[in-house]
Amino acid sequence: MKTSLACIPCFVRQALDSARMVTEDETVHERVLREVLRATGEVDLRCSPPQMGQWIHRLIRKATGDPDPYLEVKRQFNRLALELYPQLEAKVIASDDPLAAAVRLAIAGNIIDFGVTSDLRESHVTDTIAQALEEPLNGDIEALREAIDQAERILFLADNAGEIVLDRLLIEQLPREKVTVVVKGSPVINDATMDDARVAGLCDRVAVIDNGSDAPGTILSECSEAFARHWEAADLVLAKGQGNYETLSEVDKNIFFLLKAKCPVIAEDLGCTVGSLVARRADEAPAEEEDRYARA
Amino acid sequence: MKTSLACIPCFVRQALDSARMVTEDETVHERVLREVLRATGEVDLRCSPPQMGQWIHRLIRKATGDPDPYLEVKRQFNRLALELYPQLEAKVIASDDPLAAAVRLAIAGNIIDFGVTSDLRESHVTDTIAQALEEPLNGDIEALREAIDQAERILFLADNAGEIVLDRLLIEQLPREKVTVVVKGSPVINDATMDDARVAGLCDRVAVIDNGSDAPGTILSECSEAFARHWEAADLVLAKGQGNYETLSEVDKNIFFLLKAKCPVIAEDLGCTVGSLVARRADEAPAEEEDRYARA
Repeated sequence: MKTSLACIPCFVRQALDSARMVTEDETVHERVLREVLRATGEVDLRCSPPQMGQWIHRLIRKATGDPDPYLEVKRQFNRLALELYPQLEAKVIASDDPLAAAVRLAIAGNIIDFGVTSDLRESHVTDTIAQALEEPLNGDIEALREAIDQAERILFLADNAGEIVLDRLLIEQLPREKVTVVVKGSPVINDATMDDARVAGLCDRVAVIDNGSDAPGTILSECSEAFARHWEAADLVLAKGQGNYETLSEVDKNIFFLLKAKCPVIAEDLGCTVGSLVARRADEAPAEEEDRYARA
Repeated sequence: MKTSLACIPCFVRQALDSARMVTEDETVHERVLREVLRATGEVDLRCSPPQMGQWIHRLIRKATGDPDPYLEVKRQFNRLALELYPQLEAKVIASDDPLAAAVRLAIAGNIIDFGVTSDLRESHVTDTIAQALEEPLNGDIEALREAIDQAERILFLADNAGEIVLDRLLIEQLPREKVTVVVKGSPVINDATMDDARVAGLCDRVAVIDNGSDAPGTILSECSEAFARHWEAADLVLAKGQGNYETLSEVDKNIFFLLKAKCPVIAEDLGCTVGSLVARRADEAPAEEEDRYARA
């Protein structure tokens, strides 16, 4: 997905929000803001939003001297998700359709995205999760089930810390030996890295690799050779979150995108409303409401 | 009031919103956006937000070749306000305190501000007006009443089209021979010009002048000599709207600011919550809720 003009004011706001979140030093706020204004004034609109995000957050880490400014936030939402995990796991197990329930909860976890907002309350996360089993889903669970049944090698591209704990609900529903989970190579925003996969308890359950990149998405040309081998070998990719959609929606591969559409530009690209739970291939026509009564 | 860092992302968003509102030509949207990014990257934060607004809207008028891109919107909201006028006038007349009622309704009219949003619905305006007589007021009506009683020459700085029709409710409560109403010298956003004062029926009732400027506020150094003479002579200024507050809040003069605080930066500067109806001098301490039960 290309950067839209509407993304630009949002980059500028995000950059200031992020700078304010990670430091109280106003000279850093101003420096980050001015550099982002200069860069966005010249940005190539053919780049994807995560390329801009990668650049902005490298700048913020450099300006603050903090290699992982979102560490505390990542820990906070990992803790919250781990607290919620046992009751959510019980719901999945008790469900008539554990896969559908796990898909919905994993997508709901995508609300934990500090790329979209720097003002995320825990109550907003718990509310989103509480509603996830009842909400309409934009997608086709049966197509996803079939794709999983037919797959030999599944690559699961994780998105954020906290969210990755809820991803485990879904990962537990997959044939364990076929799954490789991918996290980011190094910190960017609150994206999950290997530490978060470990905290989520994934490293003892399935193969986990990192992609060697600090982009808040999956820019294939920037990922490690090890990642590239897994990518080539995979016959199904489950890609979580907006950043992965933005970077992979035009790639020719068997990819299911699992995300909460949190911005109007992505919602328009997907043909859904802002806030929708989405589980579908990029090339599938929108299926809003289709799954409304197929409750988990 | 100085430009805050938080104003910058808002300028960028407003510039794109405005460009999209006034033309469908995407090359114009991109050109306006990139020029605003470049300019805001170098903006002197000691300037006031309306100086930036003046620059942005000159750019939009130049890029579109349209000297008055908000003309249709101005006409629309003048029409709406004129439709509402008779019933609001009746309410003011029937009120126990006509001045207080008129002040509230004139402030509510300040919601008609396309500098803050390009997506203003008529229903939002009518709702805001309907609530104005019941809401808490941040200010001191008695101090305003006393100031009006003592004044010999009152300068009433109007803000927007549509709003200026509701201002007439208040202007009718003032000693007519002492009042001069000021509109903008030429079009900027949806700010009222002489045409709007005429449509509002003000030109037959009181003296109306223009300030010779296209800033969405009152930048004294840029106004005409004729305006400067009225400014010097006035012993009370009633200044409507955010733009006038932003440009005059630090000027040493007997000014009452009458506005709806629509942005968090101004609300913080005023010490009130976003959405508050404000009627007070710049140097007065916030008096939120004080007037809650003194209903008009």
